[in-house]
Amino acid sequence: MASLLDDLAEILPADQLRTGDAALAYDRDLSDGTGHGAPLAVALPTSTEQVAALVKAAGRHGAPIVPQGARTGLAGGANAVDGCLVLSLERMTRIVEVDVADQVATVEAGVLTFDLATAAEKVGLFYPPDPGSWQTSTIGGNVATNAGGMRCVKYGVTRDFVRGLTVVLASGDVVRTGRRTVKGVAGLDLTSLIVGSEGTLGIVTEVTVALRPRPAEPVGVLAAFSTRKAALAAADLMVASERRPSILEFLDRDSVAAISAFDPSAVLPADAEAVLLVQSDEPGRTTGDANEYAAISTFCGATTVEIGRDRAGVDALMQARRSLHGAMRAVSGASLNEDVSVPRSRLAELLDGIDEIAERMRMPIATAGHIGDGNLHPIVAFDPADATSVGLANETYQLVIGLAVSLGGTSSGEHGIGTLKRAHLEAELGPELRALQRAVKHAFDPEGLLNPGKKL
Amino acid sequence: MASLLDDLAEILPADQLRTGDAALAYDRDLSDGTGHGAPLAVALPTSTEQVAALVKAAGRHGAPIVPQGARTGLAGGANAVDGCLVLSLERMTRIVEVDVADQVATVEAGVLTFDLATAAEKVGLFYPPDPGSWQTSTIGGNVATNAGGMRCVKYGVTRDFVRGLTVVLASGDVVRTGRRTVKGVAGLDLTSLIVGSEGTLGIVTEVTVALRPRPAEPVGVLAAFSTRKAALAAADLMVASERRPSILEFLDRDSVAAISAFDPSAVLPADAEAVLLVQSDEPGRTTGDANEYAAISTFCGATTVEIGRDRAGVDALMQARRSLHGAMRAVSGASLNEDVSVPRSRLAELLDGIDEIAERMRMPIATAGHIGDGNLHPIVAFDPADATSVGLANETYQLVIGLAVSLGGTSSGEHGIGTLKRAHLEAELGPELRALQRAVKHAFDPEGLLNPGKKL
Repeated sequence: MASLLDDLAEILPADQLRTGDAALAYDRDLSDGTGHGAPLAVALPTSTEQVAALVKAAGRHGAPIVPQGARTGLAGGANAVDGCLVLSLERMTRIVEVDVADQVATVEAGVLTFDLATAAEKVGLFYPPDPGSWQTSTIGGNVATNAGGMRCVKYGVTRDFVRGLTVVLASGDVVRTGRRTVKGVAGLDLTSLIVGSEGTLGIVTEVTVALRPRPAEPVGVLAAFSTRKAALAAADLMVASERRPSILEFLDRDSVAAISAFDPSAVLPADAEAVLLVQSDEPGRTTGDANEYAAISTFCGATTVEIGRDRAGVDALMQARRSLHGAMRAVSGASLNEDVSVPRSRLAELLDGIDEIAERMRMPIATAGHIGDGNLHPIVAFDPADATSVGLANETYQLVIGLAVSLGGTSSGEHGIGTLKRAHLEAELGPELRALQRAVKHAFDPEGLLNPGKKL
Repeated sequence: MASLLDDLAEILPADQLRTGDAALAYDRDLSDGTGHGAPLAVALPTSTEQVAALVKAAGRHGAPIVPQGARTGLAGGANAVDGCLVLSLERMTRIVEVDVADQVATVEAGVLTFDLATAAEKVGLFYPPDPGSWQTSTIGGNVATNAGGMRCVKYGVTRDFVRGLTVVLASGDVVRTGRRTVKGVAGLDLTSLIVGSEGTLGIVTEVTVALRPRPAEPVGVLAAFSTRKAALAAADLMVASERRPSILEFLDRDSVAAISAFDPSAVLPADAEAVLLVQSDEPGRTTGDANEYAAISTFCGATTVEIGRDRAGVDALMQARRSLHGAMRAVSGASLNEDVSVPRSRLAELLDGIDEIAERMRMPIATAGHIGDGNLHPIVAFDPADATSVGLANETYQLVIGLAVSLGGTSSGEHGIGTLKRAHLEAELGPELRALQRAVKHAFDPEGLLNPGKKL
């Protein structure tokens, strides 16, 4: 029988195949501290038909298949396992259509999320989910992890915008799930099930997303506080208000300090205990909303309140927030990015607990994130060349997850489970739910070849 | 071995059990023209533990289990099959909690949707999905069918608000899926999968839903048009606008005439070719939005435009729309209620095609519904005592579904598949997707005892 490599060479031209050392560039995502193996080969298909042929070939040889987008993930979900076939969708970058009348777009999985959003914007429409990585991550990767972002506090996460998927099943069969219509209940909702499944149920090659009319040009507010409690109180009032901020972000003292050290031009007040970044994009109401958010902040004791009314001002505020990951990696060379989510009423306990863990472990933790929906990203900085530091970072990371779960929260709000958090699923789900999830996985992938060792 | 009836009597006190003729009151839902069997027994459990014990007992005896809410469904999804155990959740009516800080509510499956909405409203919160039946249907039934409603054009359908479920599996095991947090990606999204599964994957006994801050008191607009084309053009402009109507309903000539005949006090202009009912509930913008919708209507050629600014005026508008089902049943004694959904760009073709079918079949069809999201309810009136009329109604019904599917639409936007539309799933889904759905069903219910013959 021909080898898998022989079969792959039959399916793809040489420039769409990487083997040996050239394949190692695709061995992992952006997460620090996750394990990964060495792929046998990396395939760079350009069509759903090629993906189907590749899946069938891998299936014949019993080779594990690891799908990849742009490998910007932070949980190891796209990491190779030894001897696997990596299926990178990075060359499937066609924007198939943007339909103004039906307010939908269909794109191939390798399209950058930012490019999708830009294509929508060009015709007066809007794709809201904006993960931190959106300029470099693909819509296929966003679908795999059910990615969130800053605007999700108002608009919802990736799943809320996915109408339909083209999926290559483990058998190599190609199915189209979902619909183009706004509503539809024909059959079980496999679309929602596949979103967030991190490549364990099938390979998504094409995505149809819902779009909305473009909102107003946002007006942003930066409010700095001398206590965290005051910032939390202001955020609570904003969430309770009938006005719905399109962005409601939090930065703690360590986040502000790290960003200010990393980028002295950042607009953040370097000595703040806590900062809120708030936006309104509600047509006809942006200025009124921003004034209201400023007033709430002042009422709660803000020491500085700035309103950014033009695009440059708003972009500068948000750019500061987006630079945190790089800033924390710069502290000691590497970082572990948490992604915990708790019921909003438990946020104060979460932040107090993180302080306590940081002090006890003597590890720097900067916490920022989507305070509006209770999804925070504590970032643990560590030195990857120092085994003690690596060990402490991992221990710290686990403690923070345990804390979040003990507060009724979850180990992952939007980054995914990957390899990094599988251990926590046991406790979070319990034995019956785990068995049910495995049964569903088995229904899709009886041989267990799709992204083994991830998510489940 | 004891009989199933003996086992049931061990689990439940006599007043929670119906057998023989007393069980027949639970043999079907509100749909006309769907088949149903005779239940062996009807159980009226009051706790998840009782449901689990009942499911285990039925499983031991290999008896099919048919879960029921308020039996207001329109697709036969809750209809009994011969010899089944009906599990009615109607006595599980506890509102477990409404949490203001976390903006969630947890209620038992038998709580009326209107009661859930009212409980939220009392503490300044809002549960948006409002199916036509919401004063009589239960949240459990809404979850089973992924029910929609008039406000879904702005807010989304039931699935978009379900955070977590307590589910009794076919094994009798009890699991809690989902979360209380706003975001979470731990494990596969079984919650979204179970919503809309019409009782075929498990028995939902408790539901945790997301709530929002209450919007503004709505302002409504009624616009009457002398051509359908003009009404469709106005609706298209409203959907394309950055303002998002909280309700955008359409009534065709036959709907307006039927409602006006049924209820002479209805506020509709009886001679209109088409009517739009539009609402805004956007804080700080209701009057401006209503004026804009009125202006769009006038621009598109509306012959009458009325703005209802107080609650009574708005309620009167919406009450007229809600009375259509009863009005059409009154025409000849019974009706078949379609629930087709098409991409919005195909709405004109759908309506033209329905006209053509009505004329060819000589059957009255009144079409109304959620024009904002392309989900319409053509209603076929027929005489249930006349076999010819029944036959023609069924044929007409099937023709309309075929038309919608041929336009890229679906046989069911929000009512469910039940028994009424199973035949259409074949064509709509194709063999690979059907096989995958059956495999998922098998993972949940290997013996096939949960609501057999429905949905799949």
